[in-house]
Amino acid sequence: MISVGVIMGSKSDWPTMKLATKVLTDFGIEYERKVVSAHRMPDEMFAYAKEAKDKGIKVIIAGAGGAAHLPGMVASQTTLPVIGVPIKSSTLNGLDSLLSIVQMPGGIPVATTAIGDAGAKNAGLLAVRILSIEDKELSKKLKEYHNEMRRQSIESERELD
Amino acid sequence: MISVGVIMGSKSDWPTMKLATKVLTDFGIEYERKVVSAHRMPDEMFAYAKEAKDKGIKVIIAGAGGAAHLPGMVASQTTLPVIGVPIKSSTLNGLDSLLSIVQMPGGIPVATTAIGDAGAKNAGLLAVRILSIEDKELSKKLKEYHNEMRRQSIESERELD
Amino acid sequence: MISVGVIMGSKSDWPTMKLATKVLTDFGIEYERKVVSAHRMPDEMFAYAKEAKDKGIKVIIAGAGGAAHLPGMVASQTTLPVIGVPIKSSTLNGLDSLLSIVQMPGGIPVATTAIGDAGAKNAGLLAVRILSIEDKELSKKLKEYHNEMRRQSIESERELD
Amino acid sequence: MISVGVIMGSKSDWPTMKLATKVLTDFGIEYERKVVSAHRMPDEMFAYAKEAKDKGIKVIIAGAGGAAHLPGMVASQTTLPVIGVPIKSSTLNGLDSLLSIVQMPGGIPVATTAIGDAGAKNAGLLAVRILSIEDKELSKKLKEYHNEMRRQSIESERELD
Amino acid sequence: MISVGVIMGSKSDWPTMKLATKVLTDFGIEYERKVVSAHRMPDEMFAYAKEAKDKGIKVIIAGAGGAAHLPGMVASQTTLPVIGVPIKSSTLNGLDSLLSIVQMPGGIPVATTAIGDAGAKNAGLLAVRILSIEDKELSKKLKEYHNEMRRQSIESERELD
Amino acid sequence: MISVGVIMGSKSDWPTMKLATKVLTDFGIEYERKVVSAHRMPDEMFAYAKEAKDKGIKVIIAGAGGAAHLPGMVASQTTLPVIGVPIKSSTLNGLDSLLSIVQMPGGIPVATTAIGDAGAKNAGLLAVRILSIEDKELSKKLKEYHNEMRRQSIESERELD
Amino acid sequence: MISVGVIMGSKSDWPTMKLATKVLTDFGIEYERKVVSAHRMPDEMFAYAKEAKDKGIKVIIAGAGGAAHLPGMVASQTTLPVIGVPIKSSTLNGLDSLLSIVQMPGGIPVATTAIGDAGAKNAGLLAVRILSIEDKELSKKLKEYHNEMRRQSIESERELD
Amino acid sequence: MISVGVIMGSKSDWPTMKLATKVLTDFGIEYERKVVSAHRMPDEMFAYAKEAKDKGIKVIIAGAGGAAHLPGMVASQTTLPVIGVPIKSSTLNGLDSLLSIVQMPGGIPVATTAIGDAGAKNAGLLAVRILSIEDKELSKKLKEYHNEMRRQSIESERELD
Repeated sequence: MISVGVIMGSKSDWPTMKLATKVLTDFGIEYERKVVSAHRMPDEMFAYAKEAKDKGIKVIIAGAGGAAHLPGMVASQTTLPVIGVPIKSSTLNGLDSLLSIVQMPGGIPVATTAIGDAGAKNAGLLAVRILSIEDKELSKKLKEYHNEMRRQSIESERELD
Repeated sequence: MISVGVIMGSKSDWPTMKLATKVLTDFGIEYERKVVSAHRMPDEMFAYAKEAKDKGIKVIIAGAGGAAHLPGMVASQTTLPVIGVPIKSSTLNGLDSLLSIVQMPGGIPVATTAIGDAGAKNAGLLAVRILSIEDKELSKKLKEYHNEMRRQSIESERELD
Repeated sequence: MISVGVIMGSKSDWPTMKLATKVLTDFGIEYERKVVSAHRMPDEMFAYAKEAKDKGIKVIIAGAGGAAHLPGMVASQTTLPVIGVPIKSSTLNGLDSLLSIVQMPGGIPVATTAIGDAGAKNAGLLAVRILSIEDKELSKKLKEYHNEMRRQSIESERELD
Repeated sequence: MISVGVIMGSKSDWPTMKLATKVLTDFGIEYERKVVSAHRMPDEMFAYAKEAKDKGIKVIIAGAGGAAHLPGMVASQTTLPVIGVPIKSSTLNGLDSLLSIVQMPGGIPVATTAIGDAGAKNAGLLAVRILSIEDKELSKKLKEYHNEMRRQSIESERELD
Repeated sequence: MISVGVIMGSKSDWPTMKLATKVLTDFGIEYERKVVSAHRMPDEMFAYAKEAKDKGIKVIIAGAGGAAHLPGMVASQTTLPVIGVPIKSSTLNGLDSLLSIVQMPGGIPVATTAIGDAGAKNAGLLAVRILSIEDKELSKKLKEYHNEMRRQSIESERELD
Repeated sequence: MISVGVIMGSKSDWPTMKLATKVLTDFGIEYERKVVSAHRMPDEMFAYAKEAKDKGIKVIIAGAGGAAHLPGMVASQTTLPVIGVPIKSSTLNGLDSLLSIVQMPGGIPVATTAIGDAGAKNAGLLAVRILSIEDKELSKKLKEYHNEMRRQSIESERELD
Repeated sequence: MISVGVIMGSKSDWPTMKLATKVLTDFGIEYERKVVSAHRMPDEMFAYAKEAKDKGIKVIIAGAGGAAHLPGMVASQTTLPVIGVPIKSSTLNGLDSLLSIVQMPGGIPVATTAIGDAGAKNAGLLAVRILSIEDKELSKKLKEYHNEMRRQSIESERELD
Repeated sequence: MISVGVIMGSKSDWPTMKLATKVLTDFGIEYERKVVSAHRMPDEMFAYAKEAKDKGIKVIIAGAGGAAHLPGMVASQTTLPVIGVPIKSSTLNGLDSLLSIVQMPGGIPVATTAIGDAGAKNAGLLAVRILSIEDKELSKKLKEYHNEMRRQSIESERELD
């Protein structure tokens, strides 16, 4: 059953956002992915946000760049946790994306991650953490993931030369 | 007849946004003003944007601060020109508001003015300029306004000491 | 009849600014385009600004980079609406251009769009929106443009893989 | 039963962080709050992070300012979702806090909210959204909260004069 | 005989700009001071710039804030050295003023000083340095000024407690 | 006779700084150029600054990047006008260079130009403007230079397509 | 015997810099403090830097604001470790001070601490850490200092209400 | 005997950090180098920090990028001087790394160097300066290093053409 919705403002966000979906796949979490532009498809965006919970979606991951309104606008139309990924923009390197997503007014939270690829990957992991609260199997997998990261990090030392 | 809609994300934006309405009043332009929060009243915002043109509104002025989504989201639901005023925010002095409003993706323009009071006043004047294209009376008043600004600027020199 | 003047501070701004003219062409709006440097051709710039309205120009689009003075200086010499496009600069990525254009003092508005290509395209669209206020045909075309954007955005989903 | 841990790097963060606890109280969620300095109490911080899950904590909210390491370091020692609140700093207005919290490397996510008071309030609300995924009662309360925000926002219009 | 023109965009710049005039007075240099707004008095600004050299002015000091176009536009209409003082602005602390003044395109130089009071004082001193190239008396006074600064700086140590 | 000293902190600044010397050559002004590192050759730097005036130097142009101390330190040891060119740095694009040069304390002015190539060219032109105050021939050449810039700018229009 | 030299560019830096001296006093380390302006007392600054080591100074702490050249210039004239404290500046909040101090070119290091009061205190502590390498007594005191910080931090929790 | 520990958050930091080790080698100082990720190997990081002094390490050099927590967290667990190198990050050019490292709260100092390669080289040199306090041989070598830098800098002039 699909429990995570991964949406993005433009197909050009996909090379970044697919890193979020890769994490979900690795953890065996079903997701759907959609292009849902806040500015070009505002009605579809609102419909998506309003219907997500009833479809069984538990967490929404939304990536957008520049004047990045998608995560905040979706968050205003659902009570699900929304994770926002600031896409690196061509002119201001994603500082505009970051501020447009993270500086939400009191009342409507968006869980913001880092700019770009690291942020997309971490959006996937944050969704896993959230879903793992009530899912022991997932929680165990996360621990193994941490152990594996640790192991790889330690071993990477050998590659310095 | 009301030709300009002045909207803002929060009542706390009013001390700034009323400078836009003062200009409109000075030029004899009828306007309506509304609190229309993109995040707290998303459905009302969309309804406002979609109905504005049919109500006879010709220009929309929208002020918002922080992750300022109001101007861009309204612009996505109307073909009227939308003027965005970045409200000075408490933490980042309005740099976040500015980038959230001005960095719109290709397809949906927002006519952005300066951060804060100067921007609100200029939003009013920009609406006047736009309306004056087909209104000779207004165009004449604008010229007088420029002459008066010039006169006051020249005379201000006397006040230096 | 020419209704939009597209000016730029340097011929090097043309690859960006031509995106504004492309939009105008697509909407069947006649325009003239000129290199009018605020710093190298100040007298020509003032003459242009002062004569634009009498020539029938209704909207001016002005692109400039770095210490970008063209849009604001033109706005000081005309009562026409002036749209400013911050060109991406080689050292500060257009942040200097943006602030030089958008932070106008109260009295002289410049309708500022995004830095770079998206901003130039949107400057064209903003001019169309302004001209559409009193032009039902144009207004209808804009709606179709929005529909087409929406359609393309929805279909772009297929291209994710 | 305590399900949220609210921690902060210094007691001076409390005036901001108590806004997160107020939200939790309003939603009837039990929490514990602690000063856990990443730099002055590193061992206690790690102990806290490692034991939180076994104590029944489901979500951790961590506020810190300047070189704000608390949220990221706690996230590295637990698989629970960690929400980071950038405290407004005295010199750089919280831009340092924001970047120190949000720019986490791939592998260890921190759900970052806005700088300062709005961010603390939203951290509380984000925790509620997360907990509401499997709690229909909470989900219903959130919907009422949104309705109430909407109602107040609409009514605030009356207060403009 | 007047050899320095001190101009400013608005009378509100005077508390800063008078620090430049104080230096000139201290060095016995005659100056004129004027409010010459680039945006509100563009024709007067150009007239001023074009006539300055023929009136005997040798150096122009121009202060402006926000989208600060005065120094650069004056520099485009004269071959005299123009010193630009970025006035501290209310929203962005003068970073906008600085970038609008200093980032001039190749061809038209503006000698930019620091933001605010220190910059205005230094604009006066820079004018003195320039005038001292061919004026031994002035050059001697500058040396004494440096000696006096040095003496005061050394003596200030006593005041630490 | 050499009247301008062009110094730079490192030989890697030469590709930028040679644009200043090109201008001087074009105007027939003799100059010397030197690598004078503030940090690696502090004694030589001070000696250079102290002796420049007696050698007949009238204007010093100093380029430096990063923590760019050369222009300000030279200015502290001479009463000649010092022009500072912020070299574009590899990490912060020259914003560090700009602030290190322009934000001088009251007492010691540095005439700062734009970051990078435009700034170097303008440093040359600023020196010419300064020297032209008492040199009618140079002043005339500057006017011709402006006319030529204007002519080229106007003609560049033909190259748009 | 004096082992630390605490210098500052201006007496106005003293309220910040005295926090460094307080730490030194607390650890029983003798120091001298001086106003040594890089720009107003360049010769004295160089003399100070060159003689410090021979006088028995082991570590130099240098505070400066704006175009803060003192730490880097002192570092260029001594082989002692130099700690730089960026003083909070009135216009750019110390971002200029920070970049002017920290962005030193390869070859001449400055050990930079945080902007303002925290940075001054930490400069004192960094000097203590350096001196403690070969001083077991000092090393022991530092450990006690850490324990005391930890104790106070833990106890501060009681003060939250 | 190993007296410097060079650690880094990721193997991708090595191309930068090896410049620090090169300096140490040139000065004949023994070091160890390790990948010690604050986020992926938190326990190993703490163990490293706690044991470093007892192993004979006198100075720790720590490089990290983005939300760079390694230097500060290590400094919280040792009384040795810790030098932090901000690695240039892919999105914000290392400004995030710099602020995450330098803006430490009062109590726990990190000696921060420049962003990127220059910073890594200078971290090595800063370690040498610290170790040279009690090592006359090293102090002499540093002086020779300065002389050699000076010589090369002077000679580089020949290479301008």
